[in-house]
Amino acid sequence: MTERDLPHPTTGQLRLGDVLGALADPARLRLVELYADDAEHSCSEVPEELRGLHKSTVSHHQKTLRELGVVRVRIAGRNRYLMLRRGDLDERFPGLLDAVLANADEVARKT
Amino acid sequence: MTERDLPHPTTGQLRLGDVLGALADPARLRLVELYADDAEHSCSEVPEELRGLHKSTVSHHQKTLRELGVVRVRIAGRNRYLMLRRGDLDERFPGLLDAVLANADEVARKT
Repeated sequence: MTERDLPHPTTGQLRLGDVLGALADPARLRLVELYADDAEHSCSEVPEELRGLHKSTVSHHQKTLRELGVVRVRIAGRNRYLMLRRGDLDERFPGLLDAVLANADEVARKT
Repeated sequence: MTERDLPHPTTGQLRLGDVLGALADPARLRLVELYADDAEHSCSEVPEELRGLHKSTVSHHQKTLRELGVVRVRIAGRNRYLMLRRGDLDERFPGLLDAVLANADEVARKT
């Protein structure tokens, strides 16, 4: 068996407060910005700004993003691959993710 | 003296993570929905869904909303009046508040 399943909330189970809470943490938001290209990213891929974080801290943020419904995690062999659940989020909370990402960019440009 | 000033972050001091965190709590989001008419509301005015909360819990949420820059609080005599900082939020994070409020409505309608 090369693939196991991790639990993910269904689209209908996504809660606005959970998603806002997931995105409220600057490190998690930076990860979501990385995943905003809608490609799968290895769990070991970390944005430059987060390279000072301990690996277990990054893992914990990635787990939180999965549990709160922001990313889908696929396990393949020894690797984990993360992908933004853009379609599910857009279906459940239209316009929300775009508004957050647009302002995340804005904040980054200003600082 | 009938009015004292409470500390508020300036528009430039508003942080995306803070605002998302402020709105991530369902009780605070419900308060923000109450304030979304852009009128001043007495601190004692509480949406029906929050009437089971202890008064000190509501006060704490109102204080958090002020400290994180979501509402402006005016003290007049023995009363406090809260107002959504819509203009400041829209200036700093265009589209964000509208996207959150639109989905707060959506969630309320669905449940």
